[in-house]
Amino acid sequence: MKNRFKVAQAQIFAAADRAETAEKIRNYVVEAVAGGADFVCFPEMTNCPYQTKLFVSYGEPEGGETWRLFSDLAAEFKVYISAGSIPETGENGKIYNTAYVFDREGKQIAKHRKMHLYDVDVKGGIRFKESDIFEPGDSITVFDTEFGRGGLIVCYDIRFIEISRIMIDQGIRFLVVPAAFNNTTGPLHWELLFRAQASLNQIFTIGTALANDPDISFDSWGHSIVCSPWAKVLSQADEKEDLIFTDINLDEVDQIRVQMPVLSHRRKDVYEVVEK
Amino acid sequence: MKNRFKVAQAQIFAAADRAETAEKIRNYVVEAVAGGADFVCFPEMTNCPYQTKLFVSYGEPEGGETWRLFSDLAAEFKVYISAGSIPETGENGKIYNTAYVFDREGKQIAKHRKMHLYDVDVKGGIRFKESDIFEPGDSITVFDTEFGRGGLIVCYDIRFIEISRIMIDQGIRFLVVPAAFNNTTGPLHWELLFRAQASLNQIFTIGTALANDPDISFDSWGHSIVCSPWAKVLSQADEKEDLIFTDINLDEVDQIRVQMPVLSHRRKDVYEVVEK
Repeated sequence: MKNRFKVAQAQIFAAADRAETAEKIRNYVVEAVAGGADFVCFPEMTNCPYQTKLFVSYGEPEGGETWRLFSDLAAEFKVYISAGSIPETGENGKIYNTAYVFDREGKQIAKHRKMHLYDVDVKGGIRFKESDIFEPGDSITVFDTEFGRGGLIVCYDIRFIEISRIMIDQGIRFLVVPAAFNNTTGPLHWELLFRAQASLNQIFTIGTALANDPDISFDSWGHSIVCSPWAKVLSQADEKEDLIFTDINLDEVDQIRVQMPVLSHRRKDVYEVVEK
Repeated sequence: MKNRFKVAQAQIFAAADRAETAEKIRNYVVEAVAGGADFVCFPEMTNCPYQTKLFVSYGEPEGGETWRLFSDLAAEFKVYISAGSIPETGENGKIYNTAYVFDREGKQIAKHRKMHLYDVDVKGGIRFKESDIFEPGDSITVFDTEFGRGGLIVCYDIRFIEISRIMIDQGIRFLVVPAAFNNTTGPLHWELLFRAQASLNQIFTIGTALANDPDISFDSWGHSIVCSPWAKVLSQADEKEDLIFTDINLDEVDQIRVQMPVLSHRRKDVYEVVEK
């Protein structure tokens, strides 16, 4: 198993025009691979302007147009791709906020339907009701790569630490999170949550954010981030479109878990996080 | 139930001489009460220089000398006191790292034996083996006050988020943590962990740290802290002895839990943290 890999985070936003977005995605993958990336990551709602009214019309079934684009790019460039999330037209016409990961052969190795929908109404701040559109998923998603096991969640899922507590017992050493925080919670909680998840679980966290699109009303915080298991911020973007490379050395996971064995210090005789 | 209270954190270190430490504790309580404190908090190992070889000789049973000092001060000044932690000589000669809370009548309303012992060996950093001395406790501890319910843990327990996840279902709105981080993990994780616990659980966190004693080998990070449920740092000390006042408004807990209802968004149909 390889312990080192290079992540490239494509912090982009989707155009209203699908072909234009597809070209942008391709260009970012080309540039990421040219820069030596093993794993290219995209943000939440990677194919669709971030407006709830559009989520349905940009929806695609698993295997749809954007899914095939990412699968083909992964195979063509022999690179792992986290396709961000895409509105998924599922069974019975239900819509999900779904993240996919593809391996170097273009094979889907992970699919996660966002499990917690963002229904908030902060006084003087963000107001959003994702459940008007989406159905929640109900599965915890891990996947295997040549760098070991990773976990996959979408954005707001990161506030629910139970998921990653279960994932660490399933052996993850890194957590991939397509996301789109806003200008209310972003400054307060974005970096905090990625550092906290990294530190509490002694894993790398990789949060790839939607870039801010000045032409739509949603103010994306951006700030794509990678944190080490010591909770150090290895890289962080601003809010604009960007491609950020970060070298990940999974030896650090193994080292911290020996030096400060928090995970084996858990008192499973007193408490436990159970998956139902 | 009152929703506002003033915390005073007595960031001190113990003298080798017990009478000197007792006088220091009394002086801090007097000054805290003069400043309007409802709740005075002390650090981990509040009666004993922070040297593992001394923990046994400074041990006291529940109801012992330091316990009575705090109980009497609470009753005399009609103030809640978190007595930090004291090495407790328990049943069968076992020693525990035990925190107590007293109400305004001097009655013990909480007792928590540190559940996770700090056994670490960080390359180039802190090396410590608490389990050479202490037995771990095995109970999760909440307590009721005129400000509602609080939780009580000791230092390293804060890395084990399962405890507070269970406590929020038991109704806590604030978490009291006597602690003593060191110069390896303090700069990296102290503020992070208190902000993370506050944000993930939407509670106030009150971490009262041991002041750094320049005459002993343990380098205490200090930095006593109070964080709001929005994860804002309301106050933070440096490493020296100090008394810090912070006004807590528990309305903020109720407000954030309505505006961003993270706790009710938990998917207990998929996962749950269970107490055994």
